[in-house]
Amino acid sequence: MRTSKQYIESLRDGREVYFKGQRVPDVTAHAEIRLAIDHAAIDFEMAESKEHHALAVYEEEGNEFSRYFKLPRTSEDLLLRSQLIQTATALGGTLVVLIKEIGSDALFALHLVAHAIDQHKGTAYLDRVRKFYESVRSHDLALSVAQTDVKGDRSKSPLEQEHPDFYLRIVRETPDGIIVRGAKAHTSVSVNSNEVIVLPTRAMKADEAAYAVAFAIPLNTKGLKLIASSYGAHHQDSNFDFPLASKHRMIETLTVFDDVFVPNERVFLQGEWEFAGELAKTFVEFHRFTAISYKLPLVDALVGSALLMMEYNGLERAKHVQEKLARLISYAETLRALVRLAALDCESGALGIALPRTLIVNMAKLHFATNFHQMLAYVQDIAGGLVVTGPSEADFESPDVGKYIRKYLGGRAGVTVDDRLKAINLVKELTATDFSGYQAVLAIHAEGSIEAEKLAMVREHDSLRCKQLAKQLAGIADAH
Amino acid sequence: MRTSKQYIESLRDGREVYFKGQRVPDVTAHAEIRLAIDHAAIDFEMAESKEHHALAVYEEEGNEFSRYFKLPRTSEDLLLRSQLIQTATALGGTLVVLIKEIGSDALFALHLVAHAIDQHKGTAYLDRVRKFYESVRSHDLALSVAQTDVKGDRSKSPLEQEHPDFYLRIVRETPDGIIVRGAKAHTSVSVNSNEVIVLPTRAMKADEAAYAVAFAIPLNTKGLKLIASSYGAHHQDSNFDFPLASKHRMIETLTVFDDVFVPNERVFLQGEWEFAGELAKTFVEFHRFTAISYKLPLVDALVGSALLMMEYNGLERAKHVQEKLARLISYAETLRALVRLAALDCESGALGIALPRTLIVNMAKLHFATNFHQMLAYVQDIAGGLVVTGPSEADFESPDVGKYIRKYLGGRAGVTVDDRLKAINLVKELTATDFSGYQAVLAIHAEGSIEAEKLAMVREHDSLRCKQLAKQLAGIADAH
Amino acid sequence: MRTSKQYIESLRDGREVYFKGQRVPDVTAHAEIRLAIDHAAIDFEMAESKEHHALAVYEEEGNEFSRYFKLPRTSEDLLLRSQLIQTATALGGTLVVLIKEIGSDALFALHLVAHAIDQHKGTAYLDRVRKFYESVRSHDLALSVAQTDVKGDRSKSPLEQEHPDFYLRIVRETPDGIIVRGAKAHTSVSVNSNEVIVLPTRAMKADEAAYAVAFAIPLNTKGLKLIASSYGAHHQDSNFDFPLASKHRMIETLTVFDDVFVPNERVFLQGEWEFAGELAKTFVEFHRFTAISYKLPLVDALVGSALLMMEYNGLERAKHVQEKLARLISYAETLRALVRLAALDCESGALGIALPRTLIVNMAKLHFATNFHQMLAYVQDIAGGLVVTGPSEADFESPDVGKYIRKYLGGRAGVTVDDRLKAINLVKELTATDFSGYQAVLAIHAEGSIEAEKLAMVREHDSLRCKQLAKQLAGIADAH
Amino acid sequence: MRTSKQYIESLRDGREVYFKGQRVPDVTAHAEIRLAIDHAAIDFEMAESKEHHALAVYEEEGNEFSRYFKLPRTSEDLLLRSQLIQTATALGGTLVVLIKEIGSDALFALHLVAHAIDQHKGTAYLDRVRKFYESVRSHDLALSVAQTDVKGDRSKSPLEQEHPDFYLRIVRETPDGIIVRGAKAHTSVSVNSNEVIVLPTRAMKADEAAYAVAFAIPLNTKGLKLIASSYGAHHQDSNFDFPLASKHRMIETLTVFDDVFVPNERVFLQGEWEFAGELAKTFVEFHRFTAISYKLPLVDALVGSALLMMEYNGLERAKHVQEKLARLISYAETLRALVRLAALDCESGALGIALPRTLIVNMAKLHFATNFHQMLAYVQDIAGGLVVTGPSEADFESPDVGKYIRKYLGGRAGVTVDDRLKAINLVKELTATDFSGYQAVLAIHAEGSIEAEKLAMVREHDSLRCKQLAKQLAGIADAH
Repeated sequence: MRTSKQYIESLRDGREVYFKGQRVPDVTAHAEIRLAIDHAAIDFEMAESKEHHALAVYEEEGNEFSRYFKLPRTSEDLLLRSQLIQTATALGGTLVVLIKEIGSDALFALHLVAHAIDQHKGTAYLDRVRKFYESVRSHDLALSVAQTDVKGDRSKSPLEQEHPDFYLRIVRETPDGIIVRGAKAHTSVSVNSNEVIVLPTRAMKADEAAYAVAFAIPLNTKGLKLIASSYGAHHQDSNFDFPLASKHRMIETLTVFDDVFVPNERVFLQGEWEFAGELAKTFVEFHRFTAISYKLPLVDALVGSALLMMEYNGLERAKHVQEKLARLISYAETLRALVRLAALDCESGALGIALPRTLIVNMAKLHFATNFHQMLAYVQDIAGGLVVTGPSEADFESPDVGKYIRKYLGGRAGVTVDDRLKAINLVKELTATDFSGYQAVLAIHAEGSIEAEKLAMVREHDSLRCKQLAKQLAGIADAH
Repeated sequence: MRTSKQYIESLRDGREVYFKGQRVPDVTAHAEIRLAIDHAAIDFEMAESKEHHALAVYEEEGNEFSRYFKLPRTSEDLLLRSQLIQTATALGGTLVVLIKEIGSDALFALHLVAHAIDQHKGTAYLDRVRKFYESVRSHDLALSVAQTDVKGDRSKSPLEQEHPDFYLRIVRETPDGIIVRGAKAHTSVSVNSNEVIVLPTRAMKADEAAYAVAFAIPLNTKGLKLIASSYGAHHQDSNFDFPLASKHRMIETLTVFDDVFVPNERVFLQGEWEFAGELAKTFVEFHRFTAISYKLPLVDALVGSALLMMEYNGLERAKHVQEKLARLISYAETLRALVRLAALDCESGALGIALPRTLIVNMAKLHFATNFHQMLAYVQDIAGGLVVTGPSEADFESPDVGKYIRKYLGGRAGVTVDDRLKAINLVKELTATDFSGYQAVLAIHAEGSIEAEKLAMVREHDSLRCKQLAKQLAGIADAH
Repeated sequence: MRTSKQYIESLRDGREVYFKGQRVPDVTAHAEIRLAIDHAAIDFEMAESKEHHALAVYEEEGNEFSRYFKLPRTSEDLLLRSQLIQTATALGGTLVVLIKEIGSDALFALHLVAHAIDQHKGTAYLDRVRKFYESVRSHDLALSVAQTDVKGDRSKSPLEQEHPDFYLRIVRETPDGIIVRGAKAHTSVSVNSNEVIVLPTRAMKADEAAYAVAFAIPLNTKGLKLIASSYGAHHQDSNFDFPLASKHRMIETLTVFDDVFVPNERVFLQGEWEFAGELAKTFVEFHRFTAISYKLPLVDALVGSALLMMEYNGLERAKHVQEKLARLISYAETLRALVRLAALDCESGALGIALPRTLIVNMAKLHFATNFHQMLAYVQDIAGGLVVTGPSEADFESPDVGKYIRKYLGGRAGVTVDDRLKAINLVKELTATDFSGYQAVLAIHAEGSIEAEKLAMVREHDSLRCKQLAKQLAGIADAH
Repeated sequence: MRTSKQYIESLRDGREVYFKGQRVPDVTAHAEIRLAIDHAAIDFEMAESKEHHALAVYEEEGNEFSRYFKLPRTSEDLLLRSQLIQTATALGGTLVVLIKEIGSDALFALHLVAHAIDQHKGTAYLDRVRKFYESVRSHDLALSVAQTDVKGDRSKSPLEQEHPDFYLRIVRETPDGIIVRGAKAHTSVSVNSNEVIVLPTRAMKADEAAYAVAFAIPLNTKGLKLIASSYGAHHQDSNFDFPLASKHRMIETLTVFDDVFVPNERVFLQGEWEFAGELAKTFVEFHRFTAISYKLPLVDALVGSALLMMEYNGLERAKHVQEKLARLISYAETLRALVRLAALDCESGALGIALPRTLIVNMAKLHFATNFHQMLAYVQDIAGGLVVTGPSEADFESPDVGKYIRKYLGGRAGVTVDDRLKAINLVKELTATDFSGYQAVLAIHAEGSIEAEKLAMVREHDSLRCKQLAKQLAGIADAH
């Protein structure tokens, strides 16, 4: 397994990254991107640390691998994977680390769908997937996944768009591989991973076979351009003022494939349009389990910061605060319960792979996503207006005004102003800055939309059982 | 084990029951009460039936007992108990059967609290409880539980009330037993059970020791008066028009203890005021697990009837219907998931008794109770206005107008008018009659109030974990 | 103007009414229907009463007419109309009286749409409408409106249905009139009105011209069959136990047109399919203003009964009760505010007719409908479980058990048990019986569905203003 | 009236302002504060502009004054005041301008309460208030209001706190005036107004008379220290990337009164503790009407940006988008309707001053505040993930990557990428940055808390009317 240092070094590979329109010659030397790299390194540091080694690493035939890459075969595997993701995210300041989480979700899905294609089409994709998987696992690589096409007009299919490149597609096939063109949006951790796995974003029809494509390539592949989003720049921030964003960062790119060559052994779907939707869906289902796992430290942080502020402000006996607290707890613990049951009640898929229970995963994600913004409101309510009008570290340290801050911004006796302001700043970042804006938009759009989660939920529901019960109660014969 | 016939016979014991102000000489001969008795008999019929015997019965040392009376020791015990309750309730037309469910909850709680009192006070209550339990189990008795005092002014304690009897109390102690006076409200199935277990409704203080009392007595005990509520009378109804209420019924009484003598061996709490709250709470926690189990057929019936009406009305492609369906499914399945996890993650109490996880049980109950009314709205929305303007069986069968009903009240081709009307009538009873009003009020008030569930949830929540995470994220030292 | 007695007498006209499948020879002599008739008579009694005469009656050219028939020309007219509807509904036990309300809504709409058709088609419908209107007004008639077709498969248009009669249609035209066939569902007060106005239920296409039909006929017209719904039968009920339903009742019919002849002068739309949707919509918009007016006593009764129960139970200081009360008040008063503003900001239509502001009316209706069920939950929560387990009048009056009721069912000192039980019974009827089920289903389905209200709201919204503001803020030139 | 230039010049008066712990020698020369000053200047620019002059200015006895200072006497006055506030806020990028809004609210309240004190106590405060008001009006001053004390432990009263200065208080009285000590939190626009009006934050008891104090002083008064919050620094931002925050800014201070002298003629409350609560309340009620007025451009911007994104993304036919849009519209328009009715149904107070209807104002504010966060979620949902992963202006302009942005980030045909990105950036600022975090926390905490609004609503509700209706319906005699 690699050290975090090795991981960081590996990113100096000539990849074509742009930040604010400028080419970045060395991502490890770019202050803003470096923040994201150091955050990502948590996944490696955990394996290095005494405290987290047992959770972060598993052994197989005498070799140690990152537990992220363990193909889940039991509830226990899923629970440990979830625990690993939760722990990394807590260390990551409620921000998912992702460089192994998302890629392993894609690898699990590729195993299952490659197997299915091979069964139906006589292809040999599974062998390619396995080789890639072994290589990733043994080299302990960091992975990103590019899935969401830029899509253009949402009411049109790929071929109906203004130009044919709004969805990534194969523009040429050669004996050695394929040439792809297009762009993927929202590719997280691409600037700081080693390989990017590319997946289709939706089901395709027969005439859309050129859009049915999946593969993996190193990030420094020729023609691959990573246009980083500069949303939320915090590398110069005070850690007192911004306890989370000053240390934790994830960067997305518009990932442009400017006629990129992919060698055959790295191609996992090439025109089998009937399986594009299945691959998209299978990845997303694994990834939603990752998502609901990594949301847990975030929702716990909301509950915890509300509890701190309640205590620091002397609000324990305020009934309306108790009411809001009850809602926060119910929100967080329902999510936790569903994560746990999704693993305990996992389904057994092909190749002995355990799949988290789809119905429950989607209910959990929907529960998280549709109530998240309201929970921010409750935390803000308990914390008070200083969340957006409070002083900075510079004020606190100022010889001129520091004394006034210390005199006047105390809360309950026994709580230091320093601690109270730290708690307020935590609430600020969890609920009222670009850091929280990022989390809020992720709540809605990441790992598939809210509407997609509803559809998955309805599809997976055992409607027959309920209809039969209704018929029995109504006295309707069950013939129809 | 008793047959359902034996059960029914056993109710002819001279008990003092009043219905609409009139003494009922024989409850088995009173049409309205008989409806409740026949409904209750389901708990016995299941044991008699081939289909349900394995679920309804367990064996111990060669004897068969009703599974309701099995002291839970494992998750499996709790899951089977839940399954039994669910099955009985489905057979009961979404109405809980209760005559063994609630009593066994009380018996479990009495074991635990008697044990605790004995430990602290050197009393010997556990032995009394065990003897009573053995007797109930071997005679296969039907039980009711009287807990909620009439309470008078809710802002006042028992001693502050207008008169001292607003909470049940011991008015005299004799060498052989105690004399109690007072009244309990909302006592379900008291008219058709064999024994009533009486529990305190809340914590008591030192000067309220006379109110700290628990015991069990046969329903025909002298001085015990059962004033039945006539809410929801349906014994003459058409089964077509009222598929549920025409067959299923539960009756509550105002249960008056007019200086009733209870022999010592049936007294389980006598003045140990420190344990009144604990006994109330322990019973309610067991009973809430029963509650969330018996709510499952009800919520499934809501989902199922919505699915039927969607199909019968030709609404499968209406997006707003899909949206409402998604909410119904999410509602029902979140409840199911929490019931299941509460059993899987049970806690081990004293005497090897397994307790459903309190935090999760309360979250489940709160989830059920606070969203129930809105779910009725969704089902009504999908079903249409005929729910309250539709024809009766008499119209359908009428030589004069039946033909118009059959011509005009069809929905989607292929669905008979008969079936469509049956489905509509099911929705009517589930959402828009006194039957559904009863369920709705139960949702809010039965098994403890919504506010009590919130308090239990906040109390059981692992706040320390969340506060520590918040402190770690905020950079606050953990000293305070 | 007619007396209530004259009104009642006028219903003995040979109309063909069926109740529970039986022909009713005289509706005034049928106990259950008589309940509905007596309820409807309120609209006449108000004009007769000293207290309400000024509100119920207006003068024009020396003649007195029911104010319901006043064509609204100003905000003041609309406010008085709303006040009249509210007062009648309060006298009606929260149940709308409707026999003049709904018909006048239809008459207003017919004026406007007849005018529009005449303008576009050179027809002379307005003259027919005016004559009918004058006749109704001067004879002080009771009116019902039959609009909703039975519809069959909701995903299909009239011509795609299993048979062509799922929507009412013209089957033949003669020189003197038209012959119509079909059935309308949910026709309120048809059994106890004098004339029924028939309107199309939706927009029609060119090939659906036969379905574009509107007219008015007396209820005793040959071929017209009124199949009454028996939902919610209460004529034998105790007024103590059922303070509302024992006195107030509305009956809907499946209204069958078995080849009914309509003379030309009573036909208001005959094939002008382009105006079918307009007529449906215009009526519904007027009727929604009626609806939000008549909902006000209902929501006030919810607030008022919650206040009473709060007081009687001694719950004034319970914070969670205050929270629920705040939600009830906000719910009720937002509705009231929107009703008022819809009149104050009315629009001026053709013929000088004032139309309540459509956007606001629909917002009000949507607000009422989508929150109603949750409000029932709050009232039930505050009132307590006795709502469904309480005693009856017979218990209260019983020489055997009345004393126990009086002793044990008191609440706060100073409140009589009698009053407390009356308040509980009011809550019961407002929230937990077929009476409330009826109100709840009406909340969702009457006066157009929830989805229709959303569409109307979006259509009426000034989106251009908002888009221009967004463009200005974003710095987007306004060219597109 | 002053020009905007004069306004800006007037701020160079030696006031003691600190930003990030550093003394700011000239606020007009400090880039970040200058942003706030330029934003505030809108209130002056409107009076100067042709377009807005008529709205921004009123005439009295031949003199022109800012309309903000017009004492409202009619609904029309209130409607124009609301319109003025809305227009200024729209010009202010959805951020309230506030330098005349809040101060005039305080002046109105001071008139009423000074009058009341004079009536009860024989004091002569009204005369002082009038002189101050005339001076403000004729010099066209910018005003801030300092109300919220720092409060310390929320569960304790002023005298119970750790030190006596957690609430502002009079520490000494002299023949010429008073000396005050303490600190006020969240004082908006203090760094860029001319005078600060200081009001009590809550009701006081007899022994808290020293805390019952109100006055006004220039911002450069000796001992007055303004510690500005640096939350949300945007002065260097690209206007493309941050269309709102790059131009609009409001700054709050911790406002420290370090033994500040206030001359008698500027003292408006000095120990009359019985009126402290009344003054706090009266100001807040006027200010809440200001608040619900200035929220309208914000909610319209949410609706408008959702409409733009729906169009640009090609989502007009997506039903779930229509559903979310309907909720946004209902949210915004209910607020608008209540603002309007609060003015139309104003109450007439002392001195002929018109007060917006309190019940409706509080309902409006509560409606706005409790649904705001959910509305952000809907807008984010419609806009898509690019809100937090999109490119910057620098990317768009980059010779290297600009072409990819232009190729791939198009939406519907006919919409330029430039416009689409501008719309996305607007959504970003409205929902997912510190600018929106600021608005969200203001939604909850500004102009009084959510709980305070509920209390005001319940207090103002006509409960008697509802209780009497309930009694009438229940058949309860009205004696009690």
